[in-house]
This record gives sequence, structure tokens and C-alpha cells, in this order.
Amino acid sequence: MRHFINLSDYTGEELLNILDLADDLKARLKRGIREPLFPRRTLAMIFEKQSLRTRVSFDCAMTHLGGSAMYLSGAEIGFGQRETWKEFASVLSEMVDLVMVRAKHHQDVVSLAKYSSIPVINGLTDFSHPCQAMADIMTFRELLKEKTGSANLVGKTLAWVGDGNNVAFSLAEICGLMGIRFTMGTPDGYRFTPEMTDYLAHHVPNLNMTVYENPADAVKGASVVYTDVWVSMGQEDLKEQKEKDLRPYQVNEELMANCPDAWFMHCLPARHNLEVTEGVLESPQCKIFQQAGNRLHAQKAILAALMREQDADGWAN
Amino acid sequence: MRHFINLSDYTGEELLNILDLADDLKARLKRGIREPLFPRRTLAMIFEKQSLRTRVSFDCAMTHLGGSAMYLSGAEIGFGQRETWKEFASVLSEMVDLVMVRAKHHQDVVSLAKYSSIPVINGLTDFSHPCQAMADIMTFRELLKEKTGSANLVGKTLAWVGDGNNVAFSLAEICGLMGIRFTMGTPDGYRFTPEMTDYLAHHVPNLNMTVYENPADAVKGASVVYTDVWVSMGQEDLKEQKEKDLRPYQVNEELMANCPDAWFMHCLPARHNLEVTEGVLESPQCKIFQQAGNRLHAQKAILAALMREQDADGWAN
Amino acid sequence: MRHFINLSDYTGEELLNILDLADDLKARLKRGIREPLFPRRTLAMIFEKQSLRTRVSFDCAMTHLGGSAMYLSGAEIGFGQRETWKEFASVLSEMVDLVMVRAKHHQDVVSLAKYSSIPVINGLTDFSHPCQAMADIMTFRELLKEKTGSANLVGKTLAWVGDGNNVAFSLAEICGLMGIRFTMGTPDGYRFTPEMTDYLAHHVPNLNMTVYENPADAVKGASVVYTDVWVSMGQEDLKEQKEKDLRPYQVNEELMANCPDAWFMHCLPARHNLEVTEGVLESPQCKIFQQAGNRLHAQKAILAALMREQDADGWAN
Repeated sequence: MRHFINLSDYTGEELLNILDLADDLKARLKRGIREPLFPRRTLAMIFEKQSLRTRVSFDCAMTHLGGSAMYLSGAEIGFGQRETWKEFASVLSEMVDLVMVRAKHHQDVVSLAKYSSIPVINGLTDFSHPCQAMADIMTFRELLKEKTGSANLVGKTLAWVGDGNNVAFSLAEICGLMGIRFTMGTPDGYRFTPEMTDYLAHHVPNLNMTVYENPADAVKGASVVYTDVWVSMGQEDLKEQKEKDLRPYQVNEELMANCPDAWFMHCLPARHNLEVTEGVLESPQCKIFQQAGNRLHAQKAILAALMREQDADGWAN
Repeated sequence: MRHFINLSDYTGEELLNILDLADDLKARLKRGIREPLFPRRTLAMIFEKQSLRTRVSFDCAMTHLGGSAMYLSGAEIGFGQRETWKEFASVLSEMVDLVMVRAKHHQDVVSLAKYSSIPVINGLTDFSHPCQAMADIMTFRELLKEKTGSANLVGKTLAWVGDGNNVAFSLAEICGLMGIRFTMGTPDGYRFTPEMTDYLAHHVPNLNMTVYENPADAVKGASVVYTDVWVSMGQEDLKEQKEKDLRPYQVNEELMANCPDAWFMHCLPARHNLEVTEGVLESPQCKIFQQAGNRLHAQKAILAALMREQDADGWAN
Repeated sequence: MRHFINLSDYTGEELLNILDLADDLKARLKRGIREPLFPRRTLAMIFEKQSLRTRVSFDCAMTHLGGSAMYLSGAEIGFGQRETWKEFASVLSEMVDLVMVRAKHHQDVVSLAKYSSIPVINGLTDFSHPCQAMADIMTFRELLKEKTGSANLVGKTLAWVGDGNNVAFSLAEICGLMGIRFTMGTPDGYRFTPEMTDYLAHHVPNLNMTVYENPADAVKGASVVYTDVWVSMGQEDLKEQKEKDLRPYQVNEELMANCPDAWFMHCLPARHNLEVTEGVLESPQCKIFQQAGNRLHAQKAILAALMREQDADGWAN
């Protein structure tokens, strides 16, 4: 039984298979087909931090597949507080079929998975955001295919501009697994932590990554330019400093002029005219809503792949 | 694609068609039939204010139709705070099939609808409460039909007693659309705002409405006497003044003696012996639970009508 | 129409029939069968106190049966605050098919039931926890059958050690109804309240119950040793005193040596090395996860039994 916690627990080919499934499920949905492939399965969704996209997309995904998702706020269920991980994980494993967690601390997701006999899905931690990266690469493939007729990502460049956070980390990880070149335009002090760097070195040895001081250097030749908010939930005390340090890394029309054919991505919500200008957000290059919509399809495929594997293992709650 | 935000976006005939559907769905449910007419469709329910009736009735309605509703508290998803309306609406539109909003500010529902490619349902604002009015008129028709054999509302009188609030406004609007005479027993200072009056003048030109200082004058000849709490959620600071000013507008046995055949309605919760006496609430004229139950049926019909139209438009998420 | 509020509203045989159904539903689930026996039925779940097990198990149970559960926090819906019990119960009865309540005050559940035309399920009060007791006896039967080939509980002993709380009360009640001997190792001041004692005397006259000062005496000859946390939610101010008084009633290896064949049960969450030692929790005698899992199956059977009866009564919302 496998979890979906780190992208590099999967091979690039396995992830592409999941994305193929996502494409297929999306195409069916667009034709009005919502096959109850996994009737009456249940997903527990645990949130230690607020969420719109992750919550709504997982809930819809389970409904479309014939099942149901239940929202559990970390505070209400005493996540990590009321009982040991073993107890918590064992009890959930007796009841639901899958669990998705948005946790403040990556280690809590790992601890939960350690004692779970059901798949645990990482729905964002301080370390990574693999579901977002899957939706992003799904979008990248769609855009490439529409433009060139081929969805082959190998050798393309995805440029990250700004803070080297959890989203950036998962993008680096998936780029490495899929043969996509990953560039970062990120100042000193905002690059990957030693833990992230070590992780990538050990688990994604083929990663082709270059970090640039100058964001213009990072986006040259890029097919995708990606940024994220500078101040994440819970980082409000760092606001002033981060905004000062990252101001030169704003994605604006001037920066995008270095890669006129590149698409712009952002995992949302965006702070207009901080990390990205209104002009870029309103440009035809901006693919943020397609990206957000693909959260639904990519995660539905992840859920389906995990449940298929459970069924193949003969698992039944 | 249409929203369900203002009743007068629809003709009286269109609203009656929805109520016919509501009658039909209710009759089927009473025979134990819950046809999954719209399997695996999803409704996002956003609440900026607490709710029992609206929340439970919409949730049940979606389940009965074969779909699923998800409850999102305004605070948890950062409604109107974390991102622009365009972003918020576009993201939701990529994921769910419909969205219902209980908002503090009517304008927020309008802003959400502006950018939504899915139907937006007004689940109560400071301006109006169209779903409540639909359930009320459904109830009115049932009562009339039971009593007289005919559900013809034209020329009947619905009397509002007390504060001219959002519920009163939606009742005025629907009465105008359906040829029902609308009277108000409401003191100066509690009548419709200029915005409401303007709206009705422009959008419901056929409204036959009379405002009386004396509630006894308002209820004479009425088929329905309707009141609502004097102090709504969030108005606690106005409590003393409103209770003083509206005391003469209490619906009590003395007032109801002016219209012995009239039914009593209230959108609940009621404050016993403030806006309405225990005696009236316990009288056979009181139809508040039938009314509350019809929230389920009327809203199910609204949802079904909106989804039918989506399907006819060939829309698919 | 019946509620599920007090176990002794049912005969022992009726409860055993529900447990037979629970066994059957569990066996089917383990074979991957989740028959939608009650499609599109709805359960309102009201929680005045936080919950993991009760909430997740009821939600899953409704989904497996083809229906849906909705979570309503007491605060959000103004439970017992915003309106009379009659209004609240009547409105819910018009919309949902069943209601489950976790209430601070048992009397509130009784009040709700008084005015409900739909079944009310007690999901824990300050007085009792019947759903937990059903899952526990289900587990007891499974263990007995596995060990001896027979699930006959008559004459077996279930020993409660520690605080004589709501869980202990429901176990006493069900033991009396099923012919199980019930012993308590509980100090003075922590035994059943006069109200509980009176209740048992009147409603469970056949109860064979002995209270011991010394926990070693209570567990001798027991098939099951059961304890619960000393300090429940909301009792934090009593923490120091309760921990001092109940320390000699810890379930540890020394105590369990008095009944080497007994199974250990706990309704969770457990405070490790307070009411029970890590050693007991990690021993093969410990059946807490089987017990927790049986919450799902037992409650599913309770729901199914209540809905069957509704259907037999010709009830339809």
C-alpha cells in the first residue's frame, strides 16, 4: 500500500500514468460523464491551515468518483494533540478509505502515514505540495500539446521566480523526475533549505536545476514562469522583510519580456502587484485558472490510482 | 446561464414553473421517491452568517438529487478577503457545479456572480432572501389549494407586520411578480430603504403594495400574516430601540382577530412573545413548520431548474 | 417511531439483533460490499463537544448505506440557544431523516426527541454513551467467538476500572440487558450518581453489578477490563484531584495479572501511563482498535435498524 506524500516515492513514468488518467477523467467530465468508479468510498480531509482550492477540489473529486469526503479541521479533532499518532492513524484506518492532510509540519504527515493502513495524501506541508505540482505539470502538458501537438516535457524549462518555498520544492522534485529543466530566480536567503537540497540530491539525482541571482536569467528560454505569494499563511511577522527582499523578483511585464512565449503560472491566491502584476495576471499568457481547475482532475486521478492499488491488494475496510 | 439572486430576474410564470416542480418533487419524496436526477453534481455553500434552515435544506436537497453539498464558512475560506472576486469565482467555477452564498453584503453576491460561469444562488443577504420567499409562496399555494381547491394567488393579500427587512423585501418582490397584493404594517423608520423602493419601482412595476401605520389596517382581508424577528444577527446593538419601536407591531391574538381566516407565517427562528405571541405560534393558523419544510422542496426545485438549464446549454465542468 | 437514546428502551434481544446486523454489515464490507440500502437518506450530526470517532464513524456509515451525513457544530447552529426545542426539532424533522446528537446535557437530547418526528440518536451525553457500548459488546462477542467458538455473553464478566462515568453507565446498562456480570473497581466519590443508580434500578432490574474498592477484586474472573480517561473534555479544573484519587485505579500489568485471559478495552483517546500503561496498550490483550472500528459497524446497524422501522411505518419526509 502506497501513500502520496513525496513525489519521488514514484517514478516519473508512474506520475505520467497518473496524469494520463487525469487527462482521461477530465475529458470524460467535460462530456458530462462522472462515472462512480469507487462507489461509497470515503476520504477524511484534515486541515491544520485554511484552504479553498485543496478542500473543494478533493471534495468534488470524491463525489465525482461516487464517494464522499469529510472535512475535519485540525483543531476540532485535536490533530497531533489528543492522542498518539498510532492511535489516531489506527482509528482512522478502521473507518475511512483514504486520508488527506494539510499539515503545518511535514513530519506529522510522515508520522500519520507510518501507522496508517490506508493511503495518506500530502495536501500541503511546510516542506512540499505534491498535489499542486501534479496539477501544474498536467497544465504544462495540456498547453504544450495544444501549442505543439506534443506533450513531451523533456528538456523544457520551468522557471521559478521568488521565494524558494514548499511549492517550489515540489516543482523541482517533479521536474527532476520528468526531465524538465528547473531554474530559480531567487535571492540568497530564500533558496531551498539544506534539508530540501539534501532531499533532492538523494531522491532526485537527475534534477537539472540552476539557481540565478537575476530573475531575468532564470526565465530566459523558459516555457513556464511560476511564482507564489511571498508571505504564506502564518508568516505575517516576516511580511515587511520578505516584501523588501523579494521586490526585485516580481513577475511583471518587463520580466516576461525575456520569455515572450512562456506561460505564467501561480498556485493562488495571488497578491496583485506584489509578486505578480495585474498586467501579467490579465495577459493571455496567464494560465492560473486552468491550473486551479486541474487540481480537481489531477487529484481525482491520484485518488483513483491509490484506490485501484488498494483494490488490487485485496484491501477492504 | 442564469443565477438565482433576484426574484425579478425571473418572470412570475417562470417562478410558478419552479414551484410546480417543487410541488412535484415534494409529492415524490412523500411517496419515498428520491430520484438521483443530477448524479454527482456538487454545490458549494458559503456562509458568512450562521444558519440552520438554509444549510440543512440545501444539503438535503443536493443529496436527494444524487449530488453533494459542501459547507464552507466564510471565515475559513477567506470569503471576500483572500483574493479578488474574479479569482475566487473563477476557481470555484472550475470545480463545483453551483454555488450558494449567505453573505453580509448583497453586493458580494453580485460580484461573485459577475465572474462565475456557474449559477450563483442568493441564500440571504442584507438586501433580500429569495429562497425564503419561494418557500413561502409554495406554502401559500398549498394552503389555498387545500382550502379552496385552487392555488390561484392572484388578488390575494399577504400582510407583512413589523420591520421592513430583507425577507419583507423578497416577499414584496414575489408578490408583485405573482399578482398578490402586499401590505405592510410598519412604522416610520422601519419601511423599505430608498434602495429597496427604487429596486421595486424599476423591476416590479406591477407591485400592488400599501404601507400602513396601523398593523390592524394591514392585516384586514389578508390571507397570510407574516412577521420576522425584530433584531437580526449582527444587530444586537439596536436591540433596545427596535424592541421599543416595534412593540405595537407584535402579531398577537388581538391583531389576528382582524383576519380570522388568515394563516400565520414566520421564517424562523421566532422570539416568543416579542414579535409574535406564544398563542399565535400555537394556534392552528400557524404554518411555520410547513413553511420551513418547504425550504427543502422549493430550493431543490431551484437547484434542479438551474442544473437543467446548464445541461440544456451543454455546459460541463 | 423509536429513538436510540437509552439502551434500556430496547430489550437485550433487540440489541442482539442489531449486533447481528452489525456483524453482517461488517462481513460484507470486508468483502468489499457496500450496498446502498438506504439511498439518499440524510443524517444531521450535531456536536456540542469535539469528536473524532463518533463523527467519522457516523459519516462513513451513512455513506456506505448510500446516504449522507452533515456535520453541524452546536455553536454554529445555536443548539439549544436560538430557538425552542419544539421549533428546532420540528424544522429538522421536516428536512433530514435522522439526527445524531453529542450533547453536554442528556436532557437536551431528551427534549429534542420529544418534539422530533424522526429518530434521535444519542451520540454521547453527560449521562450515557449507548453507541459506544454497542460497539464494545460487538467486540466482546467477536473476541469470545474467535476464542471459544461461541458468542454467548451470558454469565461473562465485564470489569470497569476507574471513574464511573457516562461510558461506564452505558456498559452497566447493556450488561444488565444481556446477562453479563458488571463489576466496578471504583473509589468512593467516583461511583454512579444517584440518578444513574436509580435509572438502572428501574430500567435494568436484572443487572448483576458489584462495586469494589479494590480494582484487583473487580477484575478477577473478568473477560474484559475496561477503563476510560480520568479527565473528560470540560473537566480540566478537576484534573489534579481526579488524577490523585484515581491513580490506584490505573490499569497496568500488575492489575492485569489478576485476569491473564482478559481483553483490555478503552473507548479512546487514552492518556498513556495515566489511566492505562503503555505496556497494557501494547499487549496482545489490548483490543482498542478493533473496538474503535466497530463503532462504524455497530452504528451502521443502528442507523439501518432505525431506517427500516421508519420504512415499515410508512414514514416519508
